[in-house]
Amino acid sequence: MPELRRDPIVGRWVIISTERAQRPTDFRQVAPPLPTKPLCPLCPGNEAQTPPEILAYRAAGGAPNTSGWSLRVVPNKFPALQIEGDLGREGVGLYDRMNGVGAHEVIIESPDHKTTLASLSEKQLEDVFWAYRDRILDLRKDGRLRYILVFKNHGQAAGATLEHTHSQLIALPIVPTNVLNEIVGCREHYKDKERCIYCDIIHQEISDRSRVVGENSEFLSIAPFASRFPFEVWVLPKRHTSYFEESQKFQFEALARLFSDTLRRLDRALGTPPFNFVLHTSPLHERTGEFYHWHIEVMPKLTQVAGFEWGTGFYINPIPPEEAAAFLRDAEV
Amino acid sequence: MPELRRDPIVGRWVIISTERAQRPTDFRQVAPPLPTKPLCPLCPGNEAQTPPEILAYRAAGGAPNTSGWSLRVVPNKFPALQIEGDLGREGVGLYDRMNGVGAHEVIIESPDHKTTLASLSEKQLEDVFWAYRDRILDLRKDGRLRYILVFKNHGQAAGATLEHTHSQLIALPIVPTNVLNEIVGCREHYKDKERCIYCDIIHQEISDRSRVVGENSEFLSIAPFASRFPFEVWVLPKRHTSYFEESQKFQFEALARLFSDTLRRLDRALGTPPFNFVLHTSPLHERTGEFYHWHIEVMPKLTQVAGFEWGTGFYINPIPPEEAAAFLRDAEV
Repeated sequence: MPELRRDPIVGRWVIISTERAQRPTDFRQVAPPLPTKPLCPLCPGNEAQTPPEILAYRAAGGAPNTSGWSLRVVPNKFPALQIEGDLGREGVGLYDRMNGVGAHEVIIESPDHKTTLASLSEKQLEDVFWAYRDRILDLRKDGRLRYILVFKNHGQAAGATLEHTHSQLIALPIVPTNVLNEIVGCREHYKDKERCIYCDIIHQEISDRSRVVGENSEFLSIAPFASRFPFEVWVLPKRHTSYFEESQKFQFEALARLFSDTLRRLDRALGTPPFNFVLHTSPLHERTGEFYHWHIEVMPKLTQVAGFEWGTGFYINPIPPEEAAAFLRDAEV
Repeated sequence: MPELRRDPIVGRWVIISTERAQRPTDFRQVAPPLPTKPLCPLCPGNEAQTPPEILAYRAAGGAPNTSGWSLRVVPNKFPALQIEGDLGREGVGLYDRMNGVGAHEVIIESPDHKTTLASLSEKQLEDVFWAYRDRILDLRKDGRLRYILVFKNHGQAAGATLEHTHSQLIALPIVPTNVLNEIVGCREHYKDKERCIYCDIIHQEISDRSRVVGENSEFLSIAPFASRFPFEVWVLPKRHTSYFEESQKFQFEALARLFSDTLRRLDRALGTPPFNFVLHTSPLHERTGEFYHWHIEVMPKLTQVAGFEWGTGFYINPIPPEEAAAFLRDAEV
């Protein structure tokens, strides 16, 4: 019998569709390589191919926009939003518009063209998180901005267009709907119970164990109860904390360990699947301290989103998260 | 300068990203054919390959589950939901679940394996709408069901798995989030102004004309102001009407004319693009008569939804709807 499950935070329903059940191994795949360009704009030596860098980690020093970096952040050459200008909020009859003010940056996670996030050392991965933090701390000084989303597209099916491993950051003048919905759900729960709903989920999952993928002293990774996608995994700090960018060194170290473990389990279990991840942290200028809990959502792209999902906002997931979690726990990494 | 636009019904923002601008002709493509199966289960003569039919149009008569039909509705062989059983609503700690009770049907739009919805005659297309109506009227007698979504996946990139032209219907025991959000937006607008927001949009678009794709006495097709996707088109009845299934013959005739025109314009302008469409009509047992307005949303699948969209619920659309509408208006059909 298929099952309908409801996400307790945002109220989103998913259909765990056992009739269409496939075994976890049916999803194993090697993401087809992206078309190779003659010159990779993200490789060392090609620094002039990107707009001037905003941030770079160069342990041995060196001039900006030259090689020698271990991590580099540059503006997106084809930005979805533009940093200059005012918001120009305007009504057009029934409609609302404003200027597309914001930032769109590329975090080049490694100088090595052929590596992947899952293959980085834990120290390198930790540096990626420091770079996210450094950029958020810098951008939040800009009063026009309300939210910063960090995300990654890995593999063609997940929307990547460049092969060289990188993540992206978009700073927005509005708080995105998906984060707002989480905040509304968290606030409701807090009003009712004076507890964070993510903390409640963490406690329930740690005691139940069937959806736990991995764990260390500071972080937990789970296949969420109402997973939208097969092998969806959330990584959450066990301690209640609302702002990713206020994490301390021991927390980024622990996050790098568990996140690396999670990505390697996905690769080991599924081949090298295409995936997206998104970092959901608090909006820049809202007080969410008691009730919102930052986290990372990893979404392998193994099934297609089609008319049903577009029409309903529901998802059909052919793999129960309990099965996905067991399969990922059993992966040898 | 990129532009942020807000959908007035559900409050969803989109980025019209001029920096990434492409010309409309850059989106022209021929959807790759689906893998051909040795035996098409939807073709005449193969009626035994599907579960027994629920409905069929046979102008010349003939026995059920034999050839001679012009349109046929069958249960999906791999249904996402199952018609037998009770709802079994249950709490699991923090979580909610229920049995996946519902219906999942396939509307085989034509006996001709090689045709497409855009190539059907207006009379054949009208019959497809009559079939949607007949199935909705039948299923709404089932008290467990709250909503019926009709949708279509055309082409591999839009999630189609069978080549033979067909649409689908899923009957759900809950009202889907996306429809609920529209209803909430409509109710708010009605409370404030005692007018239907879709009617207001229709009036503004007819007077503005820049986003109109096509029009006849009863229906209007537009590229919506906050289009999520390049060449997204909505088809709306001009007269306020909440329930698709209560349409009269002259309305289905007019709908078939304009919908056929819309699909042919998309094919002509863009090759034969993959697309989804969804029919949004009122929930089965809610009083939405004054304020909700049924419509069809056609979403060509020409860009990829990636981490940004999953993280925010916003969309990045590289083609301003005004440009898309002009390009579709100019297509010779």
